[in-house]
Amino acid sequence: MSKAIVTGHRNPDTDSITSAIAYAYFKQQRGADAIAVRLGEINKETEYALTQFNTEAPVLASDDVVEGREEIILVDHNEFQQSIENVERFKITEVIDHHRIANFETMDPLYYRAEPVGCTATILLKIFKEHQIAIPKNIAGLMLSAIISDSLLFKSPTCTDEDIDAAEELAQLAEVDAQEYGLNMLKAGADLSEKTVNELVTLDAKEFEVGVHRLEIAQVNTVDVEDVLKQKAAIEERLDVIVQEKGLKVFLFVITDILNNDSTILASGTDLDKVERAFEMKLDDNCALLKGVVSRKKQIAPVLMKEFS
Amino acid sequence: MSKAIVTGHRNPDTDSITSAIAYAYFKQQRGADAIAVRLGEINKETEYALTQFNTEAPVLASDDVVEGREEIILVDHNEFQQSIENVERFKITEVIDHHRIANFETMDPLYYRAEPVGCTATILLKIFKEHQIAIPKNIAGLMLSAIISDSLLFKSPTCTDEDIDAAEELAQLAEVDAQEYGLNMLKAGADLSEKTVNELVTLDAKEFEVGVHRLEIAQVNTVDVEDVLKQKAAIEERLDVIVQEKGLKVFLFVITDILNNDSTILASGTDLDKVERAFEMKLDDNCALLKGVVSRKKQIAPVLMKEFS
Repeated sequence: MSKAIVTGHRNPDTDSITSAIAYAYFKQQRGADAIAVRLGEINKETEYALTQFNTEAPVLASDDVVEGREEIILVDHNEFQQSIENVERFKITEVIDHHRIANFETMDPLYYRAEPVGCTATILLKIFKEHQIAIPKNIAGLMLSAIISDSLLFKSPTCTDEDIDAAEELAQLAEVDAQEYGLNMLKAGADLSEKTVNELVTLDAKEFEVGVHRLEIAQVNTVDVEDVLKQKAAIEERLDVIVQEKGLKVFLFVITDILNNDSTILASGTDLDKVERAFEMKLDDNCALLKGVVSRKKQIAPVLMKEFS
Repeated sequence: MSKAIVTGHRNPDTDSITSAIAYAYFKQQRGADAIAVRLGEINKETEYALTQFNTEAPVLASDDVVEGREEIILVDHNEFQQSIENVERFKITEVIDHHRIANFETMDPLYYRAEPVGCTATILLKIFKEHQIAIPKNIAGLMLSAIISDSLLFKSPTCTDEDIDAAEELAQLAEVDAQEYGLNMLKAGADLSEKTVNELVTLDAKEFEVGVHRLEIAQVNTVDVEDVLKQKAAIEERLDVIVQEKGLKVFLFVITDILNNDSTILASGTDLDKVERAFEMKLDDNCALLKGVVSRKKQIAPVLMKEFS
């Protein structure tokens, strides 16, 4: 039997970690030799979820771990630059995702399931049901956590009715109150007090390519934007270094206020005029408040990318 | 409400035409304003199926027809060079396909459903069932025709158990005997007597890109390979012209014997040594018999492309 790894994206968020766990479990139930792996450190929000639902984190995808495993299943991403290094060394047999498709290619037909919903876990719930495989309580809790995380407790514009319905169903299976549990989880994730500046700008950073241009957008959630901005000078210095090293056109550092549901951005790069045009505003000392903006995927990345295409 | 077109690939085969019809019907049942279109002439096999099941062909995707329709749904393909010209002018909202993914990109999340089965219709049957939408007799017959076509009456290595089960279910809905109907349909499609040389080499031709290299593979089905080879000199002349015009590395013309289930290939291009290496044989006057080879997707395209990657 061929051996597979199931992985989410680099700088893994709660959806990437828990979807790897849930889908590896699903594949095992279907008789496959599949293990969940991760491509980076567990963040505080995910740690909270894993602890609450008493589940071990996936192992880090070291060379030792992937040795002898020829197949890979991507969850919560498809773009190669967001995946394991040299993903082409594996045979990509499946993708379960809810993002745009780009910089992705296979030699052979595969199972690819993407839906324009707010969270991979919402699609996974469908897949479990289609194959009538029961979801254990802890995995239901982790899938619920993913939906709460990606939708900012159902407030993000990426959140669909399907996500809300899925969360309700999963909350029942997990035997928790979604609102109460969700706010606690988000708060745990929004605790940035122990983060170094470098951690802040890399923890949930994603690269995007538009033609030859490379952009990067990092996002943190917080209940106190001003507290993060106390380190503005140091953050900007770090952004400038990354822009230089990677040859980025723009690095956006997005500080999302999970109580008020808007975001403050800090921009670095050579093409800040394009950032201003994209969001129809003027940067003030490289900084701007974007009212009502919380979703990188829907409200930030595509808007910025259009300026570069 | 946004308006959509549903289309299969250029040089449409039976799966591309009937899947556009079936999925447009599905979308209409779900309340969408979607119409099926086609990107080329109807071949004889498809014509036979449409006549048997008393259904009109989709309209040709002329500028007039697509005017005012901003969304596109791709069935049975994803690679942009196989799709409508300037496919990027549309918003690609969905893809239902069973091919490898390549040269495909979107700005936004979408519904993408690919499965490694033998035919798009097999996936469509699942989707109809998931949404509990009844399949009318004529559409069931067309979907059955697609599976028979893509699987060469279940003999192609691309044919999976799911395809066979789907065909059985569809044959019941269509009230036909799959074997009897299928052989008649394949024979109707294998009648090449009225085809010009140019028609033979373009009717079911597909382009493939490997890095900067472009390859093209055309395929015809027949019950009499020798009869096709009577025109070998004229076919080769035409292949050479296309290779020149398009700057192809290789053009393979594949003549598939649907009774014996093997294929004779005629090769043109600058890199015929790679053709020989790919299929581990020597070309004799640019010609070779490939025993047991009937599937472009599984046995020809990936094997050849590996030599160029």
